[in-house]
Amino acid sequence: MDIKQQIEGLKKLQTKLYGNDFLLTWEKSNDELKAILEVAQILKDMRGANISPRLFDSGLAISQFRDNSTRTRFSFASAANLLGLEIQDLDESKSQIAHGETVRETANMISFLADFIGIRDDMFLGEGNKYMREVGAALDDGYATGVLPHRPGIINLQCDIDHPTQSMADLLHLKNEYGSLENLKGKKLVMSWAYSPSYGKPLSVPQGIIGLMSRFGMDIELAYPDGYELIPEVVELAGKQAKASGGSFKVSHSMKEAVEGADIVYPKSWAPFHIMQKRTELLKKSDRAGLDALEKTCLAENARFKDWEYNEGMMKRTKNNNALYMHCLPADITGVSCAAGEVAGDVFEQYRVKTYLEAGYKPYIIASMMLTQRFKDPAVVLEKVLEQNNKRVPFR
Amino acid sequence: MDIKQQIEGLKKLQTKLYGNDFLLTWEKSNDELKAILEVAQILKDMRGANISPRLFDSGLAISQFRDNSTRTRFSFASAANLLGLEIQDLDESKSQIAHGETVRETANMISFLADFIGIRDDMFLGEGNKYMREVGAALDDGYATGVLPHRPGIINLQCDIDHPTQSMADLLHLKNEYGSLENLKGKKLVMSWAYSPSYGKPLSVPQGIIGLMSRFGMDIELAYPDGYELIPEVVELAGKQAKASGGSFKVSHSMKEAVEGADIVYPKSWAPFHIMQKRTELLKKSDRAGLDALEKTCLAENARFKDWEYNEGMMKRTKNNNALYMHCLPADITGVSCAAGEVAGDVFEQYRVKTYLEAGYKPYIIASMMLTQRFKDPAVVLEKVLEQNNKRVPFR
Amino acid sequence: MDIKQQIEGLKKLQTKLYGNDFLLTWEKSNDELKAILEVAQILKDMRGANISPRLFDSGLAISQFRDNSTRTRFSFASAANLLGLEIQDLDESKSQIAHGETVRETANMISFLADFIGIRDDMFLGEGNKYMREVGAALDDGYATGVLPHRPGIINLQCDIDHPTQSMADLLHLKNEYGSLENLKGKKLVMSWAYSPSYGKPLSVPQGIIGLMSRFGMDIELAYPDGYELIPEVVELAGKQAKASGGSFKVSHSMKEAVEGADIVYPKSWAPFHIMQKRTELLKKSDRAGLDALEKTCLAENARFKDWEYNEGMMKRTKNNNALYMHCLPADITGVSCAAGEVAGDVFEQYRVKTYLEAGYKPYIIASMMLTQRFKDPAVVLEKVLEQNNKRVPFR
Repeated sequence: MDIKQQIEGLKKLQTKLYGNDFLLTWEKSNDELKAILEVAQILKDMRGANISPRLFDSGLAISQFRDNSTRTRFSFASAANLLGLEIQDLDESKSQIAHGETVRETANMISFLADFIGIRDDMFLGEGNKYMREVGAALDDGYATGVLPHRPGIINLQCDIDHPTQSMADLLHLKNEYGSLENLKGKKLVMSWAYSPSYGKPLSVPQGIIGLMSRFGMDIELAYPDGYELIPEVVELAGKQAKASGGSFKVSHSMKEAVEGADIVYPKSWAPFHIMQKRTELLKKSDRAGLDALEKTCLAENARFKDWEYNEGMMKRTKNNNALYMHCLPADITGVSCAAGEVAGDVFEQYRVKTYLEAGYKPYIIASMMLTQRFKDPAVVLEKVLEQNNKRVPFR
Repeated sequence: MDIKQQIEGLKKLQTKLYGNDFLLTWEKSNDELKAILEVAQILKDMRGANISPRLFDSGLAISQFRDNSTRTRFSFASAANLLGLEIQDLDESKSQIAHGETVRETANMISFLADFIGIRDDMFLGEGNKYMREVGAALDDGYATGVLPHRPGIINLQCDIDHPTQSMADLLHLKNEYGSLENLKGKKLVMSWAYSPSYGKPLSVPQGIIGLMSRFGMDIELAYPDGYELIPEVVELAGKQAKASGGSFKVSHSMKEAVEGADIVYPKSWAPFHIMQKRTELLKKSDRAGLDALEKTCLAENARFKDWEYNEGMMKRTKNNNALYMHCLPADITGVSCAAGEVAGDVFEQYRVKTYLEAGYKPYIIASMMLTQRFKDPAVVLEKVLEQNNKRVPFR
Repeated sequence: MDIKQQIEGLKKLQTKLYGNDFLLTWEKSNDELKAILEVAQILKDMRGANISPRLFDSGLAISQFRDNSTRTRFSFASAANLLGLEIQDLDESKSQIAHGETVRETANMISFLADFIGIRDDMFLGEGNKYMREVGAALDDGYATGVLPHRPGIINLQCDIDHPTQSMADLLHLKNEYGSLENLKGKKLVMSWAYSPSYGKPLSVPQGIIGLMSRFGMDIELAYPDGYELIPEVVELAGKQAKASGGSFKVSHSMKEAVEGADIVYPKSWAPFHIMQKRTELLKKSDRAGLDALEKTCLAENARFKDWEYNEGMMKRTKNNNALYMHCLPADITGVSCAAGEVAGDVFEQYRVKTYLEAGYKPYIIASMMLTQRFKDPAVVLEKVLEQNNKRVPFR
């Protein structure tokens, strides 16, 4: 579909994205999610056609990473730069969870000329998303009192509950793999726990996946060894959404059985919910010894499930022996990045390029979240960009 | 006043800001200070009107922070970005005070394509401002010998003597609070020491305040517990300036008495001059034990003056019980950021938004310092910007 | 020569720089090296004439510094900014040598919207250049498989073998000092080891110098104390190139004798090849004790050659007592940055400004490498830039 047609499609969607932060996919309507995907695809196609969608002459996009990041950091930087904004990183020297007054003040102090704040805060269960809303309230307050000339938008770059820029990139990948969102109906997607030699991986990816993918009529199966529960509220939500969308949702406890007949598999390690709770307590108290002990227990527990590896045998059980393999990367690849991991080396290699393509949507998803937050009528704006036809590389 | 009128006002001022670093407010004439304020206000109003004052197509603004900073860092970044420059941070891996040859060489090596260097160096008494001048001399040398295509301008982002971007932002706040600089005449401003549970806070804020505010016909009172002296030269200067401007200057030793009838109060902690001298010696020798001992002594000394808190009782003594409270932020707020601090929680809360507004001028003050250093006739340049009417957000 | 004439000269050169990384000068033809110099000079002259050569509306230039850097970092940032790209730094939290899968994946993950990757990796002998080629292969793969919209170019910002941005800046300096590359014919250039109180300095500068300067008909003499060998392949290459270009190449073991009648001297410390090999092994094993022991041995060995200082006495032996002194900076200057070093204080001071001018070419050399990698016909592009005549500082 050409860019013009896509813009026409975008016009038909009813959205209230303008002026609202992007914190959880399930706070957004289906039309809103579709609009994010459309705008992302248009921006990607414009990049391919050397059309610059520079919408800002200047301005800052602030990033705050309370946990390490390479790919999301670069995705955010790429998105901001594409739209004409400069990245400015807020680097907290200490990893304390700042609360209350400090958050409110800092949020205002950095935002006098800011357009967006992207936040990653996924270390502490019960804290990350809350922190983002605290920043949001501070910005509302700053705008209402005339401190800020406009209200900067917030983008959740991964919290304790959701990882919307990841799950939306994954969804755009699926849409393009299957031709349309409609074509996802009736497909079986397995979000499965997988073994990893490390522990403490956040829950936000599996939660983000079941919280989003359950809205498009798919049959979602969430598989994990007993004890590796996710946040109950998100699981419950996924069930309701699946039902409402004409799909289904099921929790099971064997990767082997779950992948049977699957169209799509997402094998990915995570730490159990109750461990993450304990870990949060220990992190807050900076209890090094306690954390070390917890890690030992967990790794021993993990080791009991080394057979939760997605490999040739597992793949053979999927639909036509070739379910689409997905991962947010980096994966723990057996024989490549570790001795035993989430996925066998040969299986990963078959889908490696597809996982790269999957990741490649993220910068455009973030740019789309920015654009739709800041411009009332994205279709009209994109039409103007198309008409203006500024070249990103003028003399190419 | 609309932007055009403000530009007309700007035209009447005689300045030699062009080509000169901004290192101390008292090196600038009254007309020059007024010009900085005017240009800052115009830039702020242009931002509000979505007019982009982008004066550079490309170029670097280098920041060098020899001490931690969040708000000044973001203010500098915002100012540079507003004018079209990209921030590049000079991150010294070690906190040694580099001298002589190294300073000269480094200053040139980073400046081949730089437009500005913003420097914060407030840790060592007798060093910070000197260092800035050393960098300046190196740049003069580099320009004179053809090494640099032009002479990058230097902006003092806080030194051991002055904090001009702060004090000028404070002055613009006062100007807007009272309607004009003329209206400041006869107002009583109290720059008071206040208790803080930390020690070693730089002297540059109180010095910057008395060194600037004493020039506009105000009655300045500097209050501190015996022993908490500032640099004598700056105090002497403030006295002379106050007299010359038709105001007065007084040193006293009781916050309670000082705030009596005050129009404006600025309660802020700082370390005594002689302690900062001792500290500088110890820092230079990296004498950890000596520094710890000094800190202990100081905190014990500080603790004797816990009643130097600006609270309801103090406020009641000011003019109409509601003197304008000012602070450079972050303040040590009793019951909020500490058990006992510079200001009572309820009093701070009454003026919180005003302190945010006060801080909000800083990016524009810095942008104004850049603009007036680099363009011979700022009024003409701003007129062209207005006429050109480029939108910061074109399709808003 | 004016800019138009220079562009005409550029048109006559046959190059295949387009689409090819810049990793080693000896992989490039003479015409290609000349084109790099021409474009760099044109960009420098455009900067002087306030003409903005902004060729990108947006885009990222990624820098990866696996070793400390100030001047190359700022040169890369300046070059990117000049062309309209934003710097994004890839900061590896750990200094491990990442290999294989991780390199391939990371290279793709950061490059979805990147135009260039500049890499410094000079710590490990046998690793740096290899790493750059690994990244390059990953990017080829990413582009071939449709993961990347185009293939970002790689620029070697110093590896274990070569330091092409340095040597090319040095060559442009020589060209301007002597009026043309042709005038370098028959000139005697001495690349000499010199004493330094530190150890472990990379071999890439001397190797880069003999690998490049041996191609222009000069008489190159490489002088070092017995034991301070460079990588044999590079030395052999320099010999062949010198012969082919009508010059000569000689290795000798006395600075005093080598500088006799020299036109140009480049006294610079480096660690012996076999020591760097041993050091690489120890670094890989993180053998702290072994590294300390090696350092001690080396410093003791170094100390035997304190007379390898370039001083008045040495200078007196050069052609007309005033050979052109060159250095990549920072130099170890006797009595200035150390008690005894590579060069005497008074001699350095005579040539200080020239070394600054030498360094000043680097940003333009890097920008030239970017431009020639990304645009098929640089002359046509630069003609358009000239014609377009966009001002870097519009209202200057």
